[in-house]
Amino acid sequence: MTELNLETAKKMIEQAEEKAKEIKVPMVITIVDGGGNLLACHRMDQSLLASIDISQNKAWTAVALQMPTSQLYDAVQPGGELFGINTTNNGKIVVFGGGIPIKSGDRIIGGIGVSGGSVAEDTEVAEAGLV
Amino acid sequence: MTELNLETAKKMIEQAEEKAKEIKVPMVITIVDGGGNLLACHRMDQSLLASIDISQNKAWTAVALQMPTSQLYDAVQPGGELFGINTTNNGKIVVFGGGIPIKSGDRIIGGIGVSGGSVAEDTEVAEAGLV
Amino acid sequence: MTELNLETAKKMIEQAEEKAKEIKVPMVITIVDGGGNLLACHRMDQSLLASIDISQNKAWTAVALQMPTSQLYDAVQPGGELFGINTTNNGKIVVFGGGIPIKSGDRIIGGIGVSGGSVAEDTEVAEAGLV
Amino acid sequence: MTELNLETAKKMIEQAEEKAKEIKVPMVITIVDGGGNLLACHRMDQSLLASIDISQNKAWTAVALQMPTSQLYDAVQPGGELFGINTTNNGKIVVFGGGIPIKSGDRIIGGIGVSGGSVAEDTEVAEAGLV
Repeated sequence: MTELNLETAKKMIEQAEEKAKEIKVPMVITIVDGGGNLLACHRMDQSLLASIDISQNKAWTAVALQMPTSQLYDAVQPGGELFGINTTNNGKIVVFGGGIPIKSGDRIIGGIGVSGGSVAEDTEVAEAGLV
Repeated sequence: MTELNLETAKKMIEQAEEKAKEIKVPMVITIVDGGGNLLACHRMDQSLLASIDISQNKAWTAVALQMPTSQLYDAVQPGGELFGINTTNNGKIVVFGGGIPIKSGDRIIGGIGVSGGSVAEDTEVAEAGLV
Repeated sequence: MTELNLETAKKMIEQAEEKAKEIKVPMVITIVDGGGNLLACHRMDQSLLASIDISQNKAWTAVALQMPTSQLYDAVQPGGELFGINTTNNGKIVVFGGGIPIKSGDRIIGGIGVSGGSVAEDTEVAEAGLV
Repeated sequence: MTELNLETAKKMIEQAEEKAKEIKVPMVITIVDGGGNLLACHRMDQSLLASIDISQNKAWTAVALQMPTSQLYDAVQPGGELFGINTTNNGKIVVFGGGIPIKSGDRIIGGIGVSGGSVAEDTEVAEAGLV
């Protein structure tokens, strides 16, 4: 896989949905490509309306900063190096876990963003999408 | 069907994608619920990046104005009753065809929005999603 | 060339600037990549402040709609098929000439957007950038 | 130099790019004029997509607040005098280092903004642009 396509994006979302059902937390799951543009987004029944934006923004952040969103958490706390970064990109940077880059070898070809549960749950579901 | 869920939304998108493949025009297809909130969005390979927003906005418009977006076309022309309505809702109202309400009996329970081809093609694909 | 990089983008801008100097109209010139993301933007001395956004949006539109922005002009006039499209994407779609896709074979790998003069002048300068 | 022009802006960006290459961190580098308006922006290959906005906003902030963005850091922490200022200007104020005013004598004639690495790296590259 050198570039994401809709087929792959749907498979990743399905895998993530499986995990979300297993842990019984409805999620919104988004896949974006390497340019940060949306490929697919599914909102599971009963999941949070706020998660529509959050999952899309997590996927974008993972691509735009080339790291899992969980890695931002410490740096953005008061006194942290990047305190305030969450307001620099029209509010699109999410600074807690649930967004993970999708890689082909060393290259980032997209991102997955999951929102709906606790950060630990969102992260678990996002990771399930990458398998 | 009294309320849309993700399962139904995915089936509608699949049906629409079939038609898009048949007419050989890649599309972005979005389903929103009766509150105008996104349920699912798929961007087919090679479709237009601009269509991500347009398809979502068409689906929203169909619910928010309770009519197919094609019905807005005459009213928004210069001299028409609703000239200018496309700028009243943060640019979310799309005034050409490709967005259609999804009904359960007489009740609007959601909307489908399709973008990627000509208005006639978008409308054809959106209608295919409703069958 | 299968993907744009900064080196190529700078060369394209230089070529466009040459033409702009030749016709004596200061321009803002922008290159975006295939995902619509900015690679480089130069504002020539004395060019219009409004052109900063317009040139960036023209480059984005050329990629996002996979066509020169000049091709939109007829379709967006009153009574045209796409009348109103310029308000569907947060105002990023520019519907007059000056934005052109950059291709590698048949594939669109980016866009150039030029603003500062008449549409004919903008288009001439954009085309000079592609040589 | 009493006013910035594109020629000078390009030289500053080149100098900054040299430093960025030397420390092996790809950066986005922006120069704005004394009105806070963009003069030139370059995105080096492999640099972060998020840095496009951040570098432009850093350059703007340095001019708009007439100080290096690093000087905001203490004042915006919880309990600090300017806590919350990063959300007052449509998210354009960046409150960590990497943006520096460009001066002619005592007068501020523009700003440089750099984003892509750690705050220390961004600052080092921005300073290299000013030499």
